[in-house]
Amino acid sequence: MTSVTPVSALKLPAPGAVAQVAATELARVLGPAQVSLRDEDRLSYARDMWPKALLWIRQGKIPPPPDLVAWPASEAEVAAVIAVARAHKLAVVPFGAGSGVCGGTIALRGGIALDLKRLETIGRVDPDNLWVEVDAGVIGEVLERNLNEQGYTLGHFPSSIYMSTVGGWLAARSAGQLSNKYGKIEDMVLSLRAVTGAGEVVETPQRPFSGPDLGQVLLGSEGTLCVFTRVRLRVHPVAQHRAFRGMRFKTVEAGVEAMRLLFAAGLRPAVVRLYDPFDTALVGKEKPKKKKDLAPSLRNPLRADLLPAALRKLTPLTLGHPSLMNRAADLFQHCRMILMFEGEPRRTQEEALEAVRLCEKAGGHDEGEAPGRAWFKKRYDVSYKMSKVVDAGAFADTMEVAATWDRVLPVYEAVREAAAGLAFVLCHFSHAYPEGCSLYFSLVSSAGSEANQEKRYDTLWETILEAATGAGANVSHHHGVGVLKAAQLARELGDGRRLLLALKGALDPDGILNPGKLSL
Amino acid sequence: MTSVTPVSALKLPAPGAVAQVAATELARVLGPAQVSLRDEDRLSYARDMWPKALLWIRQGKIPPPPDLVAWPASEAEVAAVIAVARAHKLAVVPFGAGSGVCGGTIALRGGIALDLKRLETIGRVDPDNLWVEVDAGVIGEVLERNLNEQGYTLGHFPSSIYMSTVGGWLAARSAGQLSNKYGKIEDMVLSLRAVTGAGEVVETPQRPFSGPDLGQVLLGSEGTLCVFTRVRLRVHPVAQHRAFRGMRFKTVEAGVEAMRLLFAAGLRPAVVRLYDPFDTALVGKEKPKKKKDLAPSLRNPLRADLLPAALRKLTPLTLGHPSLMNRAADLFQHCRMILMFEGEPRRTQEEALEAVRLCEKAGGHDEGEAPGRAWFKKRYDVSYKMSKVVDAGAFADTMEVAATWDRVLPVYEAVREAAAGLAFVLCHFSHAYPEGCSLYFSLVSSAGSEANQEKRYDTLWETILEAATGAGANVSHHHGVGVLKAAQLARELGDGRRLLLALKGALDPDGILNPGKLSL
Repeated sequence: MTSVTPVSALKLPAPGAVAQVAATELARVLGPAQVSLRDEDRLSYARDMWPKALLWIRQGKIPPPPDLVAWPASEAEVAAVIAVARAHKLAVVPFGAGSGVCGGTIALRGGIALDLKRLETIGRVDPDNLWVEVDAGVIGEVLERNLNEQGYTLGHFPSSIYMSTVGGWLAARSAGQLSNKYGKIEDMVLSLRAVTGAGEVVETPQRPFSGPDLGQVLLGSEGTLCVFTRVRLRVHPVAQHRAFRGMRFKTVEAGVEAMRLLFAAGLRPAVVRLYDPFDTALVGKEKPKKKKDLAPSLRNPLRADLLPAALRKLTPLTLGHPSLMNRAADLFQHCRMILMFEGEPRRTQEEALEAVRLCEKAGGHDEGEAPGRAWFKKRYDVSYKMSKVVDAGAFADTMEVAATWDRVLPVYEAVREAAAGLAFVLCHFSHAYPEGCSLYFSLVSSAGSEANQEKRYDTLWETILEAATGAGANVSHHHGVGVLKAAQLARELGDGRRLLLALKGALDPDGILNPGKLSL
Repeated sequence: MTSVTPVSALKLPAPGAVAQVAATELARVLGPAQVSLRDEDRLSYARDMWPKALLWIRQGKIPPPPDLVAWPASEAEVAAVIAVARAHKLAVVPFGAGSGVCGGTIALRGGIALDLKRLETIGRVDPDNLWVEVDAGVIGEVLERNLNEQGYTLGHFPSSIYMSTVGGWLAARSAGQLSNKYGKIEDMVLSLRAVTGAGEVVETPQRPFSGPDLGQVLLGSEGTLCVFTRVRLRVHPVAQHRAFRGMRFKTVEAGVEAMRLLFAAGLRPAVVRLYDPFDTALVGKEKPKKKKDLAPSLRNPLRADLLPAALRKLTPLTLGHPSLMNRAADLFQHCRMILMFEGEPRRTQEEALEAVRLCEKAGGHDEGEAPGRAWFKKRYDVSYKMSKVVDAGAFADTMEVAATWDRVLPVYEAVREAAAGLAFVLCHFSHAYPEGCSLYFSLVSSAGSEANQEKRYDTLWETILEAATGAGANVSHHHGVGVLKAAQLARELGDGRRLLLALKGALDPDGILNPGKLSL
C-alpha cells in the first residue's frame, strides 16, 4: 500500500523554447539518442533522494524539472554542452547517480540535467605511486570492486556506494565508513580535471605543495563552480588484517570522552561508531539482511540505507507520538561503541589493545570482538528497499553535522530537545578527528495528511538545524548542502563568503552552473 | 675576511613622494614610532634570506627596497595600513621574520614593508579540542616553547624555527622535520583570519567539511592574496616515547624503495631521512655544535642552517672544481636512513620493528638506535652562523622539490647530472607520502669574481630547476616560490592558473599585495 502518485499521473510543464533550440544543437554534438526532452527522463532527473521531494511527489507536486537531459560521453562533450548552455544562458545541473539527500540536483531554474555516467573509464592502479585515475561518472562500488581485483582499496565506503558516483563524492565532500583511517574523499584527491562554467577545462597539479591549493575550492562546490570529469585518487593495498572490538559505556558522555581520548592519543581506527542508548538497543536487535537484497537501485524515493535498519521497522502508529517514544528511549542507558582497526597484523592488534585500554580508562566495558565483527558483516547488508514506515505515509530523514569535542554533547542534547515533539530521534557519533567528530541523527516522523507531513518536515528541519548550529555544529559533515542547508552554509561562511562569490563570478560568469545551490 | 659591503656604503634611492604622504597618514594611525622611512630600516626589509640577494649586496647592488616600513600591532591596524596603501595604490609586502630563501619578500615595486611581528599573542591550548589560537607574527620557537610548557606540541619543526613566524609558515606552506607524522602546516590549520587586498577581514569556518575549503587557497599565497593575522592550529600532547633507528642501504635506489614500502604499509614515522652516499659520508663525520651557538639571529645573510653542517667546512679551493668533487662523491656508496617514531611506547616500538622488517626486505642493514639518536640530538644544533665557505666568496643554496615515487630517482639523477659542472651537489630524501617524497639538494659553488658568482648562480638555478621539473618534479615542496620559481609555478599550474588569476582579481582588485610573486 503506497501513496506515491504514479508517474503517468504527473503533468510536467513543457520544456522552454530556448531549451528546445539547445536540444537540437546538442543532438548534433552528442548524437540524437544522447539528448532527451521526454517527460519520463525529465521527471527522473527532477529530484535526487531528498526526502522532501518524495513528500512533494506523494502530493502530486513535481519538483522543478530540467528542460532536457544530456548524456555526454567525454570531457570534450561536457565542455561542448556547457558551451551550448552558455550561449543560450541555460542552467546546467551536473548529475551523477542522484543519491544526494539535500536536493543538490533539483533543477531550480530548469535547463540541462547533465548526466555524467557515460564518463566511466577506470585506469589501472599505478602500483609504485599508489593511485588510480578514474572518470567522474563511475559508480563507487564498480570502482572499489575493480580496485579489489588488483589488490587495492580506495578506503571509501559511503553507504551510497552502490548508487553514487565518484563525481558526486567530489562535489559533496563525501565521507565513507572508514574515513577515520583513510580520510574523506577530499583527502584522497591527488589531482583533478573539471570543466568550468566558462566552458574551460582546468587540471590541478599533482598534490600541490606550494602555492594555493586550487582543487580544494572545487571540491565541495556541488556543481556550482565546475563539472568534474576525471580525478586521480590515492589507493591503498588491501588490509592484511582486521581487529574488531565492541565497548559498552554507561553514558553517551563516557563514550564520547573515550572517542576523544583515542584520537588525542594518535590512534586512527578505521571504524569508530558510538551509538546513543536507543540506537544501541535497536541495533542490537537487528538481524543481517539476505544477500539478494543487496542489488543497487536508483528507483527508490528514499535513501533508506542511511537509516539504522531497525528504525525502518517502526510503524506509523508508534510514530504518531514522538514525545512518548523519545521519553521511552530514555529508559535505555548503555551505549555501544564499535571499533575496527586494519593493517599489518601485529601493529593492528597493538592499536586495538591500546584503544581498549583508553576506553576502559573512560569507563568502558570490553565486550570482545563479536559486536565489531557483527557490524562489519552487516555493513553491506543495507536494504535499498523503501522502509515500510515510509510506504505507510511517515517520513524519515537523517541529519549529519560536525562539532568540536566541547560542543558534541551540547549539540546532541540541543537537537534531541528541539526535535522531541516533532520526530523520533536516534543518534550515533562517528567520523572522528583530534578536534571533534560528526553526529548522525536519524529522524522519523508522521503527521497525518501529506500536506501536514510537508509542513512537519520543514518545521523539523528548521528546528533541528537551528538547534545544532546554535549549539556550535557545522551545517554538514558529508551529506553536502544542496538546497536544504544553503542558507545556513551562507551564515557559516560569514565574511568568507566573499571569497566564494568571487570564485563564482570568475569560474561561472553567466551563473549557469547549478543555480540556487550553496547559496549561489 | 668577508666581502660584504658595509651597510653605510650602500646608497638607497629616496622613498617616492606618494610613499612619503602615505607615511604621514600611517604615522597618524599607528603612531610615529611604528612607521619608518629611514634607509637602515628600508635596507633591512629589502631582502629575505634568498642567497642571490647576498650576491647582490656583495657587489654593492641593493635589492629593490620598500619605500617605508610599517609595524601594526593588531588586525585592525593591518586593515588600516592596507586601506592607506590602496588609496595611494602603493604595493604592500607582508613581512614575517624574513627567513624565506626564494626572494618572496623583496619589494619589487617598492611600497610598504608590512612587518607583522607585533601581532604576537598566543592563546592558551584548548585541552578538549586540542588547538591553539596564535597571531601571525609569533616566532615559531616561541610558540613551540609555550606549547611545551603546557604539555603540548605543534609537531612543526622547520629548520628556520628560531627565525620564522607562524604567518610566514602559512604564506609558504612550510614543512617541519616531523611532517611525515604531523603533516605540513596546511594540514594543521583548523581556521584562519586574514585581511585581503581590498582591506576586508575574512575568517574561514572551523574545519569546513562541506562547501569549498576557502582557507586552502589563501595558504601558500605568499602575500599575494591576503595578509594572515591569526590562525587556529591543531596541537598534540607531547609524545610519551620515541623509537630511533638507523638503516644502511647499498644504493640510493634501495633506500628510496624502502621509504616507499614504509608509506605503502601505512607507517607514519615522525622522521624518515635518507641521505645519498656523499651526504651520508659527510653527515657521519659531523660533530654536534656547542649550545652557545644555538641563539637565533636574523642578521646573517645566508640560511646556513639549511645546509648539511659538514658542507659548511668545505673551502673555495675544493669548490673550484665541482665536476671533480662530484666524481669523488661517487666513490662513496652506502646510504643511511634515519628513522624516528613517537607516541605511545608499545605501539611506537611495534611500528619501529615493522619499519626495520620492511627496510630489511628492501636490502637495508639495521644499524641500531645510535644513528637516529645522534641525528635527533643534533637536530637543534644548527649553526645560524654564516658558512666560512660563503664568507670566503663561494655561494651555497638548497633546492627542495617533490616527486612521485616513479620519478624520484630520475629527478635525482637529472639534477646531479645537470649540476655536475656547476656546483658540488648533495641530496637527501625526506617528507614522504604514500605517492612520493621530497628531494632536498644542497649545492655549493664558487666562480671567482662576484659578478661571475651571480651569473653562475642564475645558470645553476635555471639548469637544476629545468632538470628537476623536466624529470617530473613539483617546483617546490616547502621553501615556497617567491621570485625564484615564479615562472616555473606558472608553468606547473597550466590552465589552472586561471583560477589563481580570478582569485587575485577578486581579493586584491588593485594588485597591491606583494606584486611580482607567484607569477602574479
